[in-house]
Amino acid sequence: MLKVIAQDFIRPDAVSIVRPLYEELVRLTRQEPLCISYELFVDQKDAGHFIFIETWPDRPALDEHCATEHFRRLVPQINAYQRQAGTFILMDDFGSNT
Amino acid sequence: MLKVIAQDFIRPDAVSIVRPLYEELVRLTRQEPLCISYELFVDQKDAGHFIFIETWPDRPALDEHCATEHFRRLVPQINAYQRQAGTFILMDDFGSNT
Repeated sequence: MLKVIAQDFIRPDAVSIVRPLYEELVRLTRQEPLCISYELFVDQKDAGHFIFIETWPDRPALDEHCATEHFRRLVPQINAYQRQAGTFILMDDFGSNT
Repeated sequence: MLKVIAQDFIRPDAVSIVRPLYEELVRLTRQEPLCISYELFVDQKDAGHFIFIETWPDRPALDEHCATEHFRRLVPQINAYQRQAGTFILMDDFGSNT
């Protein structure tokens, strides 16, 4: 199981522009057959700081997600409004390392 | 519903020391009546980078967690092995802002 945290930092003036793009991205990603969970959150202290928490079976499934039409179309549209580069962390469950 | 990401950065030489402290913290926190979920992950690129993903009903529930005996006992023990200060993000669900 692969857990992912992906963080986007959007310009304050563009938050209302990216919201429908995020809505479409979440909706279509959740329809991917390999998607276990795909949740989007907003930092309480920063309305332009968007945080995805994702669960995929493995790295190939994540790669497949990043190659989908909706990802390749919507992510560059969102990134056009970034104020700084996004970050991502790929994580293993703590218990799986014991 | 309150979602939290808390990140710890532990010295490489101390990872094996903090593991049982994290195990106890996770086990006891999950027993708290207000805890909805409390998951711990490790960055695939950094064995000293620990990431909690937490779900609480609200901020008072999180504050109650931070005041428990196990939190106040174990977190300072873990923090003694930090290589840099931990971070945390309190988040709202994206959908709750639409």
